[in-house]
Amino acid sequence: MDKKLIAEARARLYSGVISDVLDGLGNMQHAMAPNVRPLDENLVLFGRARTGLYMPVYHVEPGINPYEHEIALVDDLKPDDVAVLACPPGNRIGPWGELLSTAARARGAAGAVTDGLARDVKLIREMRFPVFCGGIGPLDSKGRGMVMKIEVPVECGGVRVAPGDWIFGDIDGVCAIPAALAERTVTLALEKVAHENTVREELAAGELLRNVFARHQIL
Amino acid sequence: MDKKLIAEARARLYSGVISDVLDGLGNMQHAMAPNVRPLDENLVLFGRARTGLYMPVYHVEPGINPYEHEIALVDDLKPDDVAVLACPPGNRIGPWGELLSTAARARGAAGAVTDGLARDVKLIREMRFPVFCGGIGPLDSKGRGMVMKIEVPVECGGVRVAPGDWIFGDIDGVCAIPAALAERTVTLALEKVAHENTVREELAAGELLRNVFARHQIL
Amino acid sequence: MDKKLIAEARARLYSGVISDVLDGLGNMQHAMAPNVRPLDENLVLFGRARTGLYMPVYHVEPGINPYEHEIALVDDLKPDDVAVLACPPGNRIGPWGELLSTAARARGAAGAVTDGLARDVKLIREMRFPVFCGGIGPLDSKGRGMVMKIEVPVECGGVRVAPGDWIFGDIDGVCAIPAALAERTVTLALEKVAHENTVREELAAGELLRNVFARHQIL
Amino acid sequence: MDKKLIAEARARLYSGVISDVLDGLGNMQHAMAPNVRPLDENLVLFGRARTGLYMPVYHVEPGINPYEHEIALVDDLKPDDVAVLACPPGNRIGPWGELLSTAARARGAAGAVTDGLARDVKLIREMRFPVFCGGIGPLDSKGRGMVMKIEVPVECGGVRVAPGDWIFGDIDGVCAIPAALAERTVTLALEKVAHENTVREELAAGELLRNVFARHQIL
Amino acid sequence: MDKKLIAEARARLYSGVISDVLDGLGNMQHAMAPNVRPLDENLVLFGRARTGLYMPVYHVEPGINPYEHEIALVDDLKPDDVAVLACPPGNRIGPWGELLSTAARARGAAGAVTDGLARDVKLIREMRFPVFCGGIGPLDSKGRGMVMKIEVPVECGGVRVAPGDWIFGDIDGVCAIPAALAERTVTLALEKVAHENTVREELAAGELLRNVFARHQIL
Amino acid sequence: MDKKLIAEARARLYSGVISDVLDGLGNMQHAMAPNVRPLDENLVLFGRARTGLYMPVYHVEPGINPYEHEIALVDDLKPDDVAVLACPPGNRIGPWGELLSTAARARGAAGAVTDGLARDVKLIREMRFPVFCGGIGPLDSKGRGMVMKIEVPVECGGVRVAPGDWIFGDIDGVCAIPAALAERTVTLALEKVAHENTVREELAAGELLRNVFARHQIL
Repeated sequence: MDKKLIAEARARLYSGVISDVLDGLGNMQHAMAPNVRPLDENLVLFGRARTGLYMPVYHVEPGINPYEHEIALVDDLKPDDVAVLACPPGNRIGPWGELLSTAARARGAAGAVTDGLARDVKLIREMRFPVFCGGIGPLDSKGRGMVMKIEVPVECGGVRVAPGDWIFGDIDGVCAIPAALAERTVTLALEKVAHENTVREELAAGELLRNVFARHQIL
Repeated sequence: MDKKLIAEARARLYSGVISDVLDGLGNMQHAMAPNVRPLDENLVLFGRARTGLYMPVYHVEPGINPYEHEIALVDDLKPDDVAVLACPPGNRIGPWGELLSTAARARGAAGAVTDGLARDVKLIREMRFPVFCGGIGPLDSKGRGMVMKIEVPVECGGVRVAPGDWIFGDIDGVCAIPAALAERTVTLALEKVAHENTVREELAAGELLRNVFARHQIL
Repeated sequence: MDKKLIAEARARLYSGVISDVLDGLGNMQHAMAPNVRPLDENLVLFGRARTGLYMPVYHVEPGINPYEHEIALVDDLKPDDVAVLACPPGNRIGPWGELLSTAARARGAAGAVTDGLARDVKLIREMRFPVFCGGIGPLDSKGRGMVMKIEVPVECGGVRVAPGDWIFGDIDGVCAIPAALAERTVTLALEKVAHENTVREELAAGELLRNVFARHQIL
Repeated sequence: MDKKLIAEARARLYSGVISDVLDGLGNMQHAMAPNVRPLDENLVLFGRARTGLYMPVYHVEPGINPYEHEIALVDDLKPDDVAVLACPPGNRIGPWGELLSTAARARGAAGAVTDGLARDVKLIREMRFPVFCGGIGPLDSKGRGMVMKIEVPVECGGVRVAPGDWIFGDIDGVCAIPAALAERTVTLALEKVAHENTVREELAAGELLRNVFARHQIL
Repeated sequence: MDKKLIAEARARLYSGVISDVLDGLGNMQHAMAPNVRPLDENLVLFGRARTGLYMPVYHVEPGINPYEHEIALVDDLKPDDVAVLACPPGNRIGPWGELLSTAARARGAAGAVTDGLARDVKLIREMRFPVFCGGIGPLDSKGRGMVMKIEVPVECGGVRVAPGDWIFGDIDGVCAIPAALAERTVTLALEKVAHENTVREELAAGELLRNVFARHQIL
Repeated sequence: MDKKLIAEARARLYSGVISDVLDGLGNMQHAMAPNVRPLDENLVLFGRARTGLYMPVYHVEPGINPYEHEIALVDDLKPDDVAVLACPPGNRIGPWGELLSTAARARGAAGAVTDGLARDVKLIREMRFPVFCGGIGPLDSKGRGMVMKIEVPVECGGVRVAPGDWIFGDIDGVCAIPAALAERTVTLALEKVAHENTVREELAAGELLRNVFARHQIL
């Protein structure tokens, strides 16, 4: 996707319209569960998914760097990439914090998404780096979980994300857009946004919903 | 309920005192589950319930307007009405958004409550329209859920709400007040509020809780 | 713990570093579940645990003060104490509100933690009294739950807390520090904080995570 | 309820017909959650509820008999009584076992119901004593839970049970019948059973459901 | 599918091999959740899905037959059909019982599947009619749930089932086979069954798993 | 542990008495969650834990044997070993089936425990091989989960199990006995069993529970 379309998506789109367009294209399974929330509701995230997959562990294995694959993923982030870290259910693991945010931003990454927990929330907010997470907690992943695979398909927030898919996140939630549909989705969404403004004005002027819907088929 | 009492309730009451009064009247099942939260914690909602009941669906039925009953409900809202949209458990359906808020406010509605998800959260907050919801998410209801009945008793946030019941919502949560108890509840709550101020002052002055409680029986 | 160390902990520490130090000391079970959140994310809580243990009840027993043990606990709070109220799972009970906050602060308490619900949230925030809770709701405990034991070991937010343990809470969550480890934990955490600043600067300057981690072993 | 009616209920009724009759009397909240199952699916339980209410505990309190109230409840059981032990959610407590079954049967009790766990399942089955429980597990309640109140209203399996209510349990589940409705429910249920036999025969003979239902209004 | 293949599937296949074949065909979402269990573990169910979709309701609507669509579905069952009744999560609705089983069998139906509850379990077992359900409970659906749509795609036990798909259920669980894959799945499964017998014999003779797996690629 | 003690444990002990003894030794976290049930309630399992730890995966990785570590674990089982396979929460993975049972028994293993699902249940029961599992389902682990570590501490059914710990399972559930306590636990349990017989006889003879408990301190 070219830089201009990326910039336009970040400036003008929102997750609701992305979601409607994906529905219209027959892709209904694209929205992460509602517990995956932005740390800062004012930030918009749009970028290419780079995935990491956690496994639960119950001890610190001697002689092993428990962060090995996680570090490799972050160090390899490219501009406009989004780190997507999928955790096992149960919310015991807090894989993302301020140091990883600092490192990822230094690589030009667009943000990070995890269905696990985040920590150092205050500092991440001060950085204005877009992080979406399944909750907040102080626990490090060491001795609790370990990234075992990177660059593989994962399920994050209940949605399949493959490396190269596109992630759109804002105050209303996070959508995963399959790579093959990404440009088309963004283009259609930009068109739809204009249309919704008309609908809003007609409703605000007091027209009945049934008439406005009959005219525009938008709700 | 006359306009003056409604206005006084909105200005001076809070859900905690409503809840205590309903408890005292023997109605213990009146508070929605704690996941039903206000989109804007500064707004107070008080009005008459107008109910809609969703069913889960798994496809878009050809030749049918999936929003038919929902549109009918919203177009028929009267001043001081509260749209109450009950969703099946599982939070897959996001029935309320900014366009419905705009339409409802144009009819004079007091606000909306759903145990499903809301979207377009930023715009709804800018409107300062009181919406309480079970979460936030981008997914439209089309192909996921459909209002099948309006003006029937529902369970929303785990609480039974019949059409004509009164809804009070604020930062502490949402209470459903049975129609038959509504005026009495508001009247008693207004009395109780005055009393609590005395208690607060005595405690702040350092009196032991046991003495203050013995005197006022309020905690 | 002397007053100076307490003050330093409140001023300079955060729950993430407390958690890492406890992990390093072999105590992995110290962080409350992520639903236990601060009412005010800007406040830090650090103090000695004073515990109360709720049981669910389903009626108001005649001739009994349902708040008896709760009142005894709050009236006996000493400066720097933290009221820790453990509720049964299910979030039906809202044990903490503004009047208890007022009473506790009048005794010099540092704050309160419950895995149940809190109410009167707006007033508590205005007081700037640190309260951490498992959710928000209007329901009083009378007829729903009753403190049956005080000064006993409890489980709050999934973590064992004994009377005399230390509680650290901030925007990232709540840790319980066993009494025997408290001073050591605080001392080690103060050392670690300094170290993290170096790491942050190196990452912000664009160094690869693998090099920074190899040098400092901090993530 | 006289002995004859009790015997007839045990011999001829089943929980489905009890449930339908209670529905018809406007009492819809009478069936325990489906995880409360009989240890022996061939046994029928019908008797008067004698209630005990557990609280969660997290240590063994020195100088206290943790079974005091539980023993008092069991030792006071009368013929045709049913011990109903309500546990906090979470299934950590296994309050019922073979020794309590032996003691209860020696007092003439009709059986026991708990939404907690049972143990010594093999021996209880060999006794053919009707026990319904929320699961099976080896854990004793000592140090985990303690009966704090007996002869009070409880919620067991999600249903309110007051002392003196009647409990009917069989392979299809457990119903709690409010004391005031008990005789009427049993009498109506005995009438309904006869009617259902006719319906079954007509359906087995191949009649369409719509015709049979139109005639009998039973499904 | 011709009668002979249906009979062979019932006689020789099991859900594990069906599941493996569907996996191999790239269809990974075919197994209902493990709480959907057979009432009789010795029975095998194989037939064409005829679907009904429940909505939750909270009162009995006057002047309406609450069973209308359910009756229509059952009365229209053809030989080898399987009634598939999808319920909202929460297990409050018990849509299937002995009278429906009797009516369905009289039409030649192969069995029934629901992710809701079943009742009259003893009588259904005596009939040896294959019923798979999400639990057991005495509650009728009247006033709790109502079939609103039949012959539409549903989600049952977490799996999408469209009318005309094939259902295979046995002691190990329930698989939904998309109509377009049904014959191919059965044919491939019949081939695979033979192969597994060889593997079993080699393992029982004490060969190492790694050698047997290397040879047959079956586990 | 010598062969004789192992045989005696299998012949005379049950999980309830094991659990009580571990409680008495201060080890309260030893019982797996109640959803971990025996496939055959008549079988007793006692042996040394050999552990495997699953991670969730969402695709089949090309060029990799997804069963590699699982096969290594099973092929290395020694007489009286118990395969303990820990799965991530969510029950998507069915790691144990009849072929693994056959292979494990050929190595002399005592049985298997998993908090995931089992399949081929009928054949496993016919083998009379003790398998305890978190549910039943047809899904193979390929493309859903993969053993990534063997011979490490795991959490299975919510309980920590280290390699070399002892597992006792029967109709009442599964206990994990830390290696260091194993012989002492078995010895004490054998003593306690004898004592319980006396208690049972006294209760069956009609003595009050309070007297019997006062005498024996066993319930």
